[in-house]
Amino acid sequence: MAQSSYDKMISGDWYNALTPELDELRMAARKAVFAHNQCPPEDRGGMVPELAALFMSVGEDCLIETPFHTAYGCNTVLGDGVFFNAGVAILDSARVTIGSRCMLGPRVQIYCADHHRDIAKRRAGIERALPVTLGDDVWIGGGAILMPGVTIGAGAIVGAGAVVTKDVAPMGRVVGSPARPI
Amino acid sequence: MAQSSYDKMISGDWYNALTPELDELRMAARKAVFAHNQCPPEDRGGMVPELAALFMSVGEDCLIETPFHTAYGCNTVLGDGVFFNAGVAILDSARVTIGSRCMLGPRVQIYCADHHRDIAKRRAGIERALPVTLGDDVWIGGGAILMPGVTIGAGAIVGAGAVVTKDVAPMGRVVGSPARPI
Amino acid sequence: MAQSSYDKMISGDWYNALTPELDELRMAARKAVFAHNQCPPEDRGGMVPELAALFMSVGEDCLIETPFHTAYGCNTVLGDGVFFNAGVAILDSARVTIGSRCMLGPRVQIYCADHHRDIAKRRAGIERALPVTLGDDVWIGGGAILMPGVTIGAGAIVGAGAVVTKDVAPMGRVVGSPARPI
Repeated sequence: MAQSSYDKMISGDWYNALTPELDELRMAARKAVFAHNQCPPEDRGGMVPELAALFMSVGEDCLIETPFHTAYGCNTVLGDGVFFNAGVAILDSARVTIGSRCMLGPRVQIYCADHHRDIAKRRAGIERALPVTLGDDVWIGGGAILMPGVTIGAGAIVGAGAVVTKDVAPMGRVVGSPARPI
Repeated sequence: MAQSSYDKMISGDWYNALTPELDELRMAARKAVFAHNQCPPEDRGGMVPELAALFMSVGEDCLIETPFHTAYGCNTVLGDGVFFNAGVAILDSARVTIGSRCMLGPRVQIYCADHHRDIAKRRAGIERALPVTLGDDVWIGGGAILMPGVTIGAGAIVGAGAVVTKDVAPMGRVVGSPARPI
Repeated sequence: MAQSSYDKMISGDWYNALTPELDELRMAARKAVFAHNQCPPEDRGGMVPELAALFMSVGEDCLIETPFHTAYGCNTVLGDGVFFNAGVAILDSARVTIGSRCMLGPRVQIYCADHHRDIAKRRAGIERALPVTLGDDVWIGGGAILMPGVTIGAGAIVGAGAVVTKDVAPMGRVVGSPARPI
């Protein structure tokens, strides 16, 4: 039996992002994100139920400030006590794992998907996605960008505005664009 | 007859941004942007009619995720099949041309306006704006910033988080701050 | 008598961000920010009354585009004629002072708080905050990030996308990540 576009996406193969199956998943994410971002703060708790239900799994005591954005949501795993400041965006075309007590500053971006470098294939919606993994107790400074495939080790600190293209060791500290250890 | 502030702006002359004429155009943009950003995703289509009407022209099958921001909108031309991910902002004080099938990642920023370096003139609202042009099939990575006057050639790829201060050749690839070819 | 967590925060000592006192202040900020961001532009004026009341003080003729974000608001002082473009975020755990006629481009970020480098203390919510001060007539380019403790002298210009980790002299100009004088 042929693999679905979702199966190809999540397994790291090249896939077509412009299928009805993936359109439907993205629309479900937009609805949950809209519900969260439009909810008055006193009624929102850590996140609205629609958003908690969208994620693959959510630990205890997570807090997501608004606005938040995700492409799918259903591929994202949040540990306990995760905090996202305002404007975090997660394009979880592959698995995104956020360890317990991770803190993401404002406007942190996590990108899993790479469009194809060949124009004809890019026009056809061909992409490939790589997972992004954050260990426990990671702190990502505001405005930082995590690129497809990176793993940030437990306890690491990523400086504000960094563009992280390579793995960061546990307890490591990186800054800059591209990010380098300090 | 004296040129209007809009005529000066769009022709690349120094102009006063604080005129009733330009205030009115910016308010029209705010209203269209607000309508788009507040519309539930299942009712929004590619963009709400107010936003489609604001742009100078819009091709077929464009999709603008929310939130979106533009300063004027009326100076922006979108080709066919253009995709803006969440958080794109276009300060189109000059003409902004987005070729067909361009893909802009989350939080991509396009800036046309430069405030005056002289404080007295800056206080008085004096600015100058330069056009930004993207050829067809350009892919701008998330969080990248395109500075006033740049042209991105057809098929080029701009890396996530890049700050583009110079033209990029067709099929070119640039990364970094400031962006350099790779 | 023991200092409150707010007193410790504003005086630059290490403090616990996870107290009911500070939770309450952050919720007040969320409500004012939500009121501003949800208000139709034709009814918003320069900012909604809830946001004007949140700030420590606000001068004449300020204009804050949406979306705006602040952590507390109550520690922020705005001079006259201040302009924030769309997406400005101010984490004012310490005093933030914005001089008269300052212009902040889209997505400018001001961060006062540093989480503790020690994981056990970070888990417990221990932070320290340093003030950020902008003199009069400062222009901060879009997407720039101002780090805890920096002072930007009057009339200075910070380039788009810069990450400012050190003070900038009056009339100075800096660009890049980390920002350097030009």
